[in-house]
Amino acid sequence: MSQGVTYPFGFQASGIYCGIKKKKRDLALLVSEKEAATAALFTTNVIKSDSLRFCKKQLEKSKYSRALVVISGIANCCVGKKGLEDAKTIVRHLARELSVPYQSCLIGTTGIIGTSLPVSRVLDHLPTLKKKLSRDGGQFFAEGITTTDTRTKQAQSKVKLKGGTVRIGGCAKGSGMIAPHMATMFAFFTTDAKISPDTLHALLKKACERSFHAITVDGDQSPADMVIAFANGASGVRLSSEDLRHFEKALKATAEDLALQIVKDGEGANKLVRITVRKAISEKKAKTIAMAVARSLLVKTALFGEDPNWGRVLTAAGASGASFDPRKLKLSINGKLLYCRGGPTSYGIKPPSSLLKPETVDIELDLGEKRHKSFTVYTCDLSYRYVQINAEYHT
Amino acid sequence: MSQGVTYPFGFQASGIYCGIKKKKRDLALLVSEKEAATAALFTTNVIKSDSLRFCKKQLEKSKYSRALVVISGIANCCVGKKGLEDAKTIVRHLARELSVPYQSCLIGTTGIIGTSLPVSRVLDHLPTLKKKLSRDGGQFFAEGITTTDTRTKQAQSKVKLKGGTVRIGGCAKGSGMIAPHMATMFAFFTTDAKISPDTLHALLKKACERSFHAITVDGDQSPADMVIAFANGASGVRLSSEDLRHFEKALKATAEDLALQIVKDGEGANKLVRITVRKAISEKKAKTIAMAVARSLLVKTALFGEDPNWGRVLTAAGASGASFDPRKLKLSINGKLLYCRGGPTSYGIKPPSSLLKPETVDIELDLGEKRHKSFTVYTCDLSYRYVQINAEYHT
Repeated sequence: MSQGVTYPFGFQASGIYCGIKKKKRDLALLVSEKEAATAALFTTNVIKSDSLRFCKKQLEKSKYSRALVVISGIANCCVGKKGLEDAKTIVRHLARELSVPYQSCLIGTTGIIGTSLPVSRVLDHLPTLKKKLSRDGGQFFAEGITTTDTRTKQAQSKVKLKGGTVRIGGCAKGSGMIAPHMATMFAFFTTDAKISPDTLHALLKKACERSFHAITVDGDQSPADMVIAFANGASGVRLSSEDLRHFEKALKATAEDLALQIVKDGEGANKLVRITVRKAISEKKAKTIAMAVARSLLVKTALFGEDPNWGRVLTAAGASGASFDPRKLKLSINGKLLYCRGGPTSYGIKPPSSLLKPETVDIELDLGEKRHKSFTVYTCDLSYRYVQINAEYHT
Repeated sequence: MSQGVTYPFGFQASGIYCGIKKKKRDLALLVSEKEAATAALFTTNVIKSDSLRFCKKQLEKSKYSRALVVISGIANCCVGKKGLEDAKTIVRHLARELSVPYQSCLIGTTGIIGTSLPVSRVLDHLPTLKKKLSRDGGQFFAEGITTTDTRTKQAQSKVKLKGGTVRIGGCAKGSGMIAPHMATMFAFFTTDAKISPDTLHALLKKACERSFHAITVDGDQSPADMVIAFANGASGVRLSSEDLRHFEKALKATAEDLALQIVKDGEGANKLVRITVRKAISEKKAKTIAMAVARSLLVKTALFGEDPNWGRVLTAAGASGASFDPRKLKLSINGKLLYCRGGPTSYGIKPPSSLLKPETVDIELDLGEKRHKSFTVYTCDLSYRYVQINAEYHT
């Protein structure tokens, strides 16, 4: 079945095992049958993988591409000069294998830092990777890009526009090291709409704001993260400005869908936690406070323990650096008002632990300020399992 | 034996059980035999305990005090108007019990948020608390102020000055919710030196910079935290400006001693981790980067797992928001150089896990910048036990 990145017309993908990860597909390829307008966002981390540096340079030279190869298990980061050379070698061979220009090939790598890529092993597997390319390959590609993920993350949608129907596909990876501004995360979008690279870039940026930039698993951020969108125009549909607005909405929804899938698969996560700050004088302030709550270990462990210790939410908000009036503040969890007018409500004095039983927990902070700006951040709880996964990852 | 806050002349203390915590002393009293110059630093959290607000107001009216009562187990925070009234009631009764002015009494409360103080129970115990006052009571006071701490934290030193000998004593509490700018932490200092409140305040501020403001356990910050210093002049020694420099050094050492005791007793901690950033163009930058590494869950879980996955240190540094040149960066752990010139050293390619075996781990990042500013942050690892303690605290 055609899903994820191969849902739109004119894309093929594959994913195979080449021996980097333990018995999991670790080499993946996405190819557009024709040149695709390409837009990308990269990690803001000072430490960057060499593959990412290479992609950045490629896209500076040309905003169109044909192929993306992804290696998972090794980040190709902090490995000296070899890192850039390895990325170039792999891309050179890929271009030859696919008979496409070198300039039209991109590479993504994710995983352990400080370890070099097994280049010859990757090169040996490129012919198979090409042979396996298929219009139903989205699922294998999605598998091939994962690291500690326990499931693949894919999304797709059909958008009916005045000019005709276009399709959007996407897939993502990531489960730990998730924080705003690209955590250890890949997200790739494909569409068969006809869009210029610059418009695509603007749309992608907007789509990330309330999706990948609004999630946090552990506040850590990796040097290999990127979001790339490919628009190959295979539908033949060029978007009018009205169509663009609809397309933007659909792209946002796809990005949010993938972002939530990442949080739900957060390392060791048992709960999806939605933290909304309302009635703030600015969106920025709302986000600062929501993010501080989402990152608080005390909040996250209380959620894991299903312990309605709401004081932790308030103090995490209070330590965010943003100012607010505690007497105007209202706190609700799963629709129950726990705190207002500077003290607990009668329900808040001893809330039952059943309050946090549901798998999805909604935390709402109303600042009671004059403007009605809001922001929602998505996170998960912090469990023993998170500690276990991350204490044992390397060895 | 006279230790901690009762080590200097002219101080008495006590600590008893009044039934708030489970079978642990939870009510503590420190009294200066004569009026003591008093200086305090309070949490920067927007959410503040009402006891803390009360102390702030008391010290605005008078910079001298005689007594400090501490209740542990309940923070007296976010409980509506009752919070301030309760603090006043307790202090009013305390002043009467001790026959000292109301203006000279302070109160500290720490523990759960959103729960009111059992005022009459506290009042009932004030006579016993007074009766138990003793010059050897430092240990009981130190016990009485703890919450999840597994041990008491005390320090004392004798400072020989030109003008004579003075003593400094201190005690602290805190083990989780520890982050810069006063986490869920109390630190109280006493001295029998003769110092004005303003000088004492300046000295206290400096002493906190590289002690309590340089430690983090979980990055969370509580609304009840404060550091208070009392100087009662009972030694009769007034400090010359040269003496002051020596005194300052001794106070700093006492503060650092207590800060390290807090980190070592970090909730679930197995390791003391010292993160030093060197050769930075500014101290602020060095601190920003060191703190980002100290707060990274991926770094902390790797330390727990004794997994020398040094890439996590680099990427946490890279995500700190401070810029640096990765090619000039050097990373050493426990004296072993792992990364320099953009790649791993031969030792860094596959460092043995024995590297992280020691109970104290030294992480050093050399930014290779032109100025030689540095900052050291202290933290601990993140274990299953931390998650357990904090998932189960409330219920």
